[in-house]
Amino acid sequence: MDYGKHLILEVITKDGKDLASIVKMREFFDLIIKKVKFTVVVKPVFYKFKPRIKGDLAGITGMCVVSESHISIHTWPESNYFAFDIFSCSEFDENKVISIISDLFNVEEIYSQIVERGLRINFKRRFIKGA
Amino acid sequence: MDYGKHLILEVITKDGKDLASIVKMREFFDLIIKKVKFTVVVKPVFYKFKPRIKGDLAGITGMCVVSESHISIHTWPESNYFAFDIFSCSEFDENKVISIISDLFNVEEIYSQIVERGLRINFKRRFIKGA
Repeated sequence: MDYGKHLILEVITKDGKDLASIVKMREFFDLIIKKVKFTVVVKPVFYKFKPRIKGDLAGITGMCVVSESHISIHTWPESNYFAFDIFSCSEFDENKVISIISDLFNVEEIYSQIVERGLRINFKRRFIKGA
Repeated sequence: MDYGKHLILEVITKDGKDLASIVKMREFFDLIIKKVKFTVVVKPVFYKFKPRIKGDLAGITGMCVVSESHISIHTWPESNYFAFDIFSCSEFDENKVISIISDLFNVEEIYSQIVERGLRINFKRRFIKGA
């Protein structure tokens, strides 16, 4: 892989209810896959944890293998917080992702980072030598 | 999640054969889970892609949901390259991970990064305010 873009998002929402809903998570992944144009190779898998304190909302982990790499989410509804990743060997528009999140969730704050990966990024000498 | 540690590794190996072997990938995940002490909640899933050029070795994607978060691998055997991630809400020793990789694969070079995540890291003001 010459170049990979890894979008690392952390999101604070105004309430935690959506972050405990597998239906909402599925809707979110479907939108990302459709609008950012990923090709699913292993359908999204969602796992709901037991709540930390009985009666509390429970966190969800979701993962999906796409031909470009992967998408993952981990939610902590008790903190109104989720961590979301897209790792892709194809270019994609992170602003589109952020806009989908802003439309779908009751967002308070988003922290976004991009980690560039791949032979051309982290093994440059080798890449040029081999060119 | 107050604190999360995301280990982002990129590895160049001396040959690509192991990177096209699901058996090897499974062995690798099992070792990581056992030695770095993760708790599996969704068993590892491995997907083998079709080779880019007929007769070439084919890349693999592997993902595993652990109670601490997730483990993922994407291999490109034609480039002797793989990208490996561990995202965990518990502390773990990245040197143990690197040492498992060095023992298991015919490694030429490893590029390692740690991205710290979580409320305490990226939403510090909020965290202190809420304390």
